[in-house]
Amino acid sequence: MDGVILTPLKQIYNPKGDIFHAMKKSDEGFDGFGEAYFSTIYLNDIKGWKKHTQMTLNLVVVVGEIEFVVYDEINKEFFSVKLSQKNYQRLTVKPNLWMAFKGLSKSSMLLNIASIEHNPDEAINLDINEINYEW
Amino acid sequence: MDGVILTPLKQIYNPKGDIFHAMKKSDEGFDGFGEAYFSTIYLNDIKGWKKHTQMTLNLVVVVGEIEFVVYDEINKEFFSVKLSQKNYQRLTVKPNLWMAFKGLSKSSMLLNIASIEHNPDEAINLDINEINYEW
Repeated sequence: MDGVILTPLKQIYNPKGDIFHAMKKSDEGFDGFGEAYFSTIYLNDIKGWKKHTQMTLNLVVVVGEIEFVVYDEINKEFFSVKLSQKNYQRLTVKPNLWMAFKGLSKSSMLLNIASIEHNPDEAINLDINEINYEW
Repeated sequence: MDGVILTPLKQIYNPKGDIFHAMKKSDEGFDGFGEAYFSTIYLNDIKGWKKHTQMTLNLVVVVGEIEFVVYDEINKEFFSVKLSQKNYQRLTVKPNLWMAFKGLSKSSMLLNIASIEHNPDEAINLDINEINYEW
């Protein structure tokens, strides 16, 4: 889907503890650094829909498993992917796409490396039922 | 200690899942974005000592509890702090300080928001016994 990039990330295993890559400034999908924050979600809960008009999201699942769904309202197209340590990829979502995500583990956590600082004026929220998707 | 900043971070609780701040570009301690990665550490293991000559570290403990120790070799001074979701602060470590950390939980994980991309040429490693600290 236009505006969506999936990038496999390195997991480097070490007996004393592992290194999991998230993002380098030279990576595809990096649109500048505004803010990094974590968001947790519980089993079968869904957060969304939300559309950012300026922010590029760069999403990495750190704990558990999360299903992400992106909706392109121009082309009436859905994109979905399940991310976890087993399918360890970064999901880049460019502005002007709707996004929602569902927890598939007891408790899951994502990191978002956002291209701008949080600003409620650039985001639009819709109730989860307002875009019809078979979760 | 000069070159070390502790910054309390917001934890925003929500029934559907929480938001934990990590870093904004306008925050104290932000020296530019080079790379973000996770590092895990097991109970009683210690990673270190390492001294970066260019990289500023911004460390946030996401899972478990970690003890960080910073050593200033000029002033022969130690700084230590235990970080976790209970003591949720960001630890900024400027270049030219020695750093080591120890896992205090079964499995802990930190996020480092580093000011430059990984470059082995700007980091110096010392065996853990080469700087004497009572862990």
